[in-house]
Amino acid sequence: MRIAELAERSGVSAASIKWYVSEGLLPAGERTGYNQTSYDDDHLARLRLIRSLIEVGGLSVAAAKDVLAAADDPDHPFGNTLGVAQASLPRVAAPPSAESLRRVADVARRQGWTVHDGNPGLVAAAAVLDRYLALGRDDLAAVLPAYARAVELVAEADIDTISKTLDAGPATAAQTVVVGTVLGDALLAGLRRMAQESESVRRFGTGSPS
Amino acid sequence: MRIAELAERSGVSAASIKWYVSEGLLPAGERTGYNQTSYDDDHLARLRLIRSLIEVGGLSVAAAKDVLAAADDPDHPFGNTLGVAQASLPRVAAPPSAESLRRVADVARRQGWTVHDGNPGLVAAAAVLDRYLALGRDDLAAVLPAYARAVELVAEADIDTISKTLDAGPATAAQTVVVGTVLGDALLAGLRRMAQESESVRRFGTGSPS
Repeated sequence: MRIAELAERSGVSAASIKWYVSEGLLPAGERTGYNQTSYDDDHLARLRLIRSLIEVGGLSVAAAKDVLAAADDPDHPFGNTLGVAQASLPRVAAPPSAESLRRVADVARRQGWTVHDGNPGLVAAAAVLDRYLALGRDDLAAVLPAYARAVELVAEADIDTISKTLDAGPATAAQTVVVGTVLGDALLAGLRRMAQESESVRRFGTGSPS
Repeated sequence: MRIAELAERSGVSAASIKWYVSEGLLPAGERTGYNQTSYDDDHLARLRLIRSLIEVGGLSVAAAKDVLAAADDPDHPFGNTLGVAQASLPRVAAPPSAESLRRVADVARRQGWTVHDGNPGLVAAAAVLDRYLALGRDDLAAVLPAYARAVELVAEADIDTISKTLDAGPATAAQTVVVGTVLGDALLAGLRRMAQESESVRRFGTGSPS
């Protein structure tokens, strides 16, 4: 199909499509003549994935590019789960403190988790604790044990879903990791607001404690 | 203090400080003479909060502005919890489908939650379901019941924390909502990656199912 049809079917403007190609998120179309390029259904599927990561997952274009590159890595037929996870977390500007890393690792040990030292989530979680400390709000870290129990339920469901797609081929499994990880964060954030309202109503009789 | 000292103590460049003032995230300093402005500890605290939302919470400057405006709202002494939540979720471009809204509302009802129709989390979660459908991956919605159980644990811990700061005054309580909501999403995302690695090791013997 021509770029105009690709734009119409994907809902992405021709200018954005050209930009995604130049930024390396989308493979170039096939040149079929002077000033004419042809795109296929793979381009359409890829564009839908890019839009999902950016518009619903809230990723920047740069982060979406990193996530897709990790999922495309041919050395990892099902997508490099940890690589995708790393790329989809906000980049941590400075290494977190040893104290915060130790506190998060302690929580993991108490849950009986097997997590290697370089796990990007460990670094991201420790960076949040550092920020609580810098804001003088160490008390907020009291949520850690409850959050750890919660994400255990989440991770079990996540790995269940990945397991079920192992037979569907590498493209499907990689998509599961990308979509399930990035959009899964957005799904959790949405459900969390719903549960917060409900819990606030239960305790204070109103959706807001004010 | 002068802007140079504020920049040094906050780790934010003078140019960024001026930009945050012009964008309305940070109150202007006090003019103390020709071409000279004075800032105080409130500016420093506010800058640390802004940096946390953007660098660790992964918010855009525009989203951070919305979150701070909701928390500053004088009609809501403890911050407008739902307003803050809404501002900190990625904006949903188009209204989600009635079918996805119904599916998410069904999950909430099965959990016994009290959630009003306009809850921003409900809209955000339904938008994710729509995206799963558009990508031909309706199977990913199978995680919904497990995610709902998980966020119930999260919300209980969140409201516990807010309850404990109700006596500390409106500024502290508003900060709890802002920091706890936005950085809490980042903390959950980090812990989720750790639990995913652990669950993957438990089932596949490796951190990645490839």
